[in-house]
Amino acid sequence: MRFPLATRYADYDTAGHVNNASYLTYFEIARQRAWTDVLGQPDAPDFIVAEAAVRYMSPAKLGEPLDIEMTTSEVRTKAWVWTYRITSGERLVAEGRTTQVMYDYAAARSIPIRDDVRARLPGV
Amino acid sequence: MRFPLATRYADYDTAGHVNNASYLTYFEIARQRAWTDVLGQPDAPDFIVAEAAVRYMSPAKLGEPLDIEMTTSEVRTKAWVWTYRITSGERLVAEGRTTQVMYDYAAARSIPIRDDVRARLPGV
Amino acid sequence: MRFPLATRYADYDTAGHVNNASYLTYFEIARQRAWTDVLGQPDAPDFIVAEAAVRYMSPAKLGEPLDIEMTTSEVRTKAWVWTYRITSGERLVAEGRTTQVMYDYAAARSIPIRDDVRARLPGV
Amino acid sequence: MRFPLATRYADYDTAGHVNNASYLTYFEIARQRAWTDVLGQPDAPDFIVAEAAVRYMSPAKLGEPLDIEMTTSEVRTKAWVWTYRITSGERLVAEGRTTQVMYDYAAARSIPIRDDVRARLPGV
Repeated sequence: MRFPLATRYADYDTAGHVNNASYLTYFEIARQRAWTDVLGQPDAPDFIVAEAAVRYMSPAKLGEPLDIEMTTSEVRTKAWVWTYRITSGERLVAEGRTTQVMYDYAAARSIPIRDDVRARLPGV
Repeated sequence: MRFPLATRYADYDTAGHVNNASYLTYFEIARQRAWTDVLGQPDAPDFIVAEAAVRYMSPAKLGEPLDIEMTTSEVRTKAWVWTYRITSGERLVAEGRTTQVMYDYAAARSIPIRDDVRARLPGV
Repeated sequence: MRFPLATRYADYDTAGHVNNASYLTYFEIARQRAWTDVLGQPDAPDFIVAEAAVRYMSPAKLGEPLDIEMTTSEVRTKAWVWTYRITSGERLVAEGRTTQVMYDYAAARSIPIRDDVRARLPGV
Repeated sequence: MRFPLATRYADYDTAGHVNNASYLTYFEIARQRAWTDVLGQPDAPDFIVAEAAVRYMSPAKLGEPLDIEMTTSEVRTKAWVWTYRITSGERLVAEGRTTQVMYDYAAARSIPIRDDVRARLPGV
């Protein structure tokens, strides 16, 4: 999955660069789209984010259009990893990964990845 | 009620000034404190914000300590107005107001201001 | 000017509604687009926001697509007013207005609205 | 360094938990305090954040007071690592780390950690 990011003026800091925390919000935008549009799940995702990491490669300046690419890089029994690349044209701005755990909110415990989700994860 | 604002680097924009939308968050910080600390209500406030307004008087620069002052300026049957002043030392940075309506979330309708809240509003 | 808002999960609060401060960010998104796309100005806008106001009509829930409409409702010598309507389908979610003052950042003072901007403001 | 976090209502998501991206902002609050209060540097820090990572251990609910602890866990020639623990009482809510690189903004390149900073980093 790859799409243009709708950046906001408020995402940028006093140096004119995207603030470091905004990248986790960008990753969340991709997850939200994957969950609702691609996987066809209802709005409240039944997973929790267990880990997140970002590497800042090159600052993104105000006015530069950014794209985000998200891929499924690992699928385990109850958890899977999504990997992100944020680019400005050919330039890599940041990359990162988040680990998700399928979660039963009613029972308040992690559960195996449901079959319908598992089948479609790689194509995200 | 008057107290120092815990500003964050992420509140500031590319000009090095507090972003215009951050001021509504600052007002919310004051409401949150009024509701829990002064009025002694539980965390989920039983009011809705019906209106908000801000006048930007002088930009707040990164590194300047800011204070916020909040007063109750009007009390009606179901609604009341809180007025805010954000200052850097003697300098007025921004001022604004929000109108709150007492709300019964279970019944999904506005209700008269409860007596215990009404009695303590002016002192906020 | 009217376009769909790219809302984010982080815009929503614990009640599942768009947070009151997020609306000022939505207005800023519209201003940013007006300034760069419609008025063809460079990224750093040469105006300051002097006032902002929002009326919250009906909460926007997670998953509801939102549109924003922005119109120029008043043009004075140095300042102009933009008016915003945020809707979910036919339903009015919030409306508001901001007053902008044309500003010479180098000279640090307000100036008359430039002719090229004045000519195109009404069509925003 | 350890201090109470000034959380904001807007930090919490629709599940009533601190949003995953807010933790990077909490880490930034600690860095900002370390840089200005402990290290006595001016407001604009002369480092860049090269990497960030968070592990989410237990959700932080609205109303829970949170503390943040920050320690220097590694010091290299041009870079150092700060490690963070966010707790609610005895409970670990999240932990993480960021790697900073000392940076000469005028020359736009990384530089060795200045001696005065190096001497005080461990005590942060």
